[in-house]
Amino acid sequence: MSQGINYQKEIREQPEALRRLLTEGRAEVEALAADIKTAAPLYGLFAARGSSDNAARYAQYVLGIHNNLTAGLAVPSFFSLYDSNPNMKGSLTIGVSQSGQSPDIVGVVQAATNQGALTAAITNEPDSPLAKASKHTIQLRAGVESAVAATKTYTTELMALAMISAAMEGKEERWEELARVPDYVQQTIDTNAALSGAEAFKSMEHLVVIGRGYNYSTAFETSLKIKETNYLVAEPYSVADLLHGPVAMIGEGFPVLLVAPKGKTHADVPKILETVADRKARLISITDDEEILGKSELGLKLPAMPEWVSPIAGVVAGQIFAGALAQANGLDPDKPRGLSKVTLTH
Amino acid sequence: MSQGINYQKEIREQPEALRRLLTEGRAEVEALAADIKTAAPLYGLFAARGSSDNAARYAQYVLGIHNNLTAGLAVPSFFSLYDSNPNMKGSLTIGVSQSGQSPDIVGVVQAATNQGALTAAITNEPDSPLAKASKHTIQLRAGVESAVAATKTYTTELMALAMISAAMEGKEERWEELARVPDYVQQTIDTNAALSGAEAFKSMEHLVVIGRGYNYSTAFETSLKIKETNYLVAEPYSVADLLHGPVAMIGEGFPVLLVAPKGKTHADVPKILETVADRKARLISITDDEEILGKSELGLKLPAMPEWVSPIAGVVAGQIFAGALAQANGLDPDKPRGLSKVTLTH
Repeated sequence: MSQGINYQKEIREQPEALRRLLTEGRAEVEALAADIKTAAPLYGLFAARGSSDNAARYAQYVLGIHNNLTAGLAVPSFFSLYDSNPNMKGSLTIGVSQSGQSPDIVGVVQAATNQGALTAAITNEPDSPLAKASKHTIQLRAGVESAVAATKTYTTELMALAMISAAMEGKEERWEELARVPDYVQQTIDTNAALSGAEAFKSMEHLVVIGRGYNYSTAFETSLKIKETNYLVAEPYSVADLLHGPVAMIGEGFPVLLVAPKGKTHADVPKILETVADRKARLISITDDEEILGKSELGLKLPAMPEWVSPIAGVVAGQIFAGALAQANGLDPDKPRGLSKVTLTH
Repeated sequence: MSQGINYQKEIREQPEALRRLLTEGRAEVEALAADIKTAAPLYGLFAARGSSDNAARYAQYVLGIHNNLTAGLAVPSFFSLYDSNPNMKGSLTIGVSQSGQSPDIVGVVQAATNQGALTAAITNEPDSPLAKASKHTIQLRAGVESAVAATKTYTTELMALAMISAAMEGKEERWEELARVPDYVQQTIDTNAALSGAEAFKSMEHLVVIGRGYNYSTAFETSLKIKETNYLVAEPYSVADLLHGPVAMIGEGFPVLLVAPKGKTHADVPKILETVADRKARLISITDDEEILGKSELGLKLPAMPEWVSPIAGVVAGQIFAGALAQANGLDPDKPRGLSKVTLTH
């Protein structure tokens, strides 16, 4: 029980960290949104790795659907490895990194700033090289994160990105939806903290994690948490990509973790449930849908909430599952083998 | 031995298919390049799924490094699922799909065409809905592909994308490099066709496939071939992303497939070899580097070639490995369970 103390503590700190960012970070976000209005970028470009890359995946959906801005993920090695300098004029380039240290991420944002593009850093470290390379900085204000597996820096990254979208859209309704997120996260923690049932999955060696739309990011991040803390092969998919090939690997007893808060992506759910049933796979679910929970060997229940904010609470259920599985396996999420908190890739 | 007849035949047809595309497809590519020069797009956007998505990953590197064009992968579900219509003005939007049928891919390209953006289809079916939605069509000319697991449509997609880059750059040197690719592919087939040693990996349940830079695409596509034909969990990574978390799962006896043709990404190789040795993982390699081959339990040898074209031959070694593994497992690559040749996702 002494293992993963920081990981568990940092999971519980998320409602407070999200509230703090919403209050204290809003002025920084509004200043960026005002500059975006003036610069009128044609597309968004995110530079990020690891958990932050998953946050950027979320932003791709939010900016596309709420702000009509097409956004993609940058290739950091252009600058660091190939000494290339592709044109980023007309872009809004955002570097996302809790430490703000990784030279390849800083390289992308510095190049965009040098080219005259509008740039921003989303980071927990306002004095970091990433912040210095960017015109704007949104500070996560998550406090010290000690566990190697990121929790509160990830959910505050999602919140910062959602706040940028809300400020660009300028609708008070969006801010009201965001204001309720800390409570959704608290409910998710309260409902699932005493999770039993992860024990039954402790000897699995691999699984697939399925999510779509806004929660494509949640599938990636939940999968990463499981890999980092349990040394399992956990592979994330959208439903569509899964059906374009990889579905072949799902056979009897194969564990499938379905992230499916109610929303527009729910149309896919019957197809997934059918596939799981036909192939006698094992279902774990993260959802507010009682029908899916009823069909699951293990269900993590979410509160009902607007689909676009559901990844912020949904991933907390994923963090809890990964932690419970690590505990069942006697592993320490605070110190996964071979990982350090800050990874400097070039 | 009667299994995978089409898969094996289609692997062998690749040199000829690539030669045909180089000769017969050049006029279509030059016409597109002339329009790109006039339209001067600010960024590239690819709409694709499955193997074609991996071809788009390759194009991201080639266009960024050779043509200074930042390119990203579109989110097809914006149009099909969320009824959103993000701004694509200023983009070069390219749909990549062997069948040209998938409604979500057609949706992205049609929306871009409607917005007045420059659009192109890369497809084996010039009368498909995708071709009709696009201003330009580059026909793959790969002939009928019967095996569900794509081979020659993937390598011709890579070639079509490389040809677009060469035409945009306008350097004869690039065309000369492309002209040698069918021979590199033939050599890769001749060297590795009688692959023995896959048998020793037949009972593995998962592996990671590592590639970087241009060959990030090769890691993804090799991993997809293995999943489709062997029902294994095969997860692709760049070295950098692997070190940002997932490296934790690599332990004793864990199979690691390293795609590492010589080039700028080779700087990462010592770190990977060290990780594999420290953790007593099992190494499979696809490379022209004798040192790596010497350290591998199973090596697939490539000819020496310019790094930027190496994914076209490199993936053929991946196809051969996946096929040999399927044979060792008594599985049929022509008809993986639960997959059909054309997947219609929305």
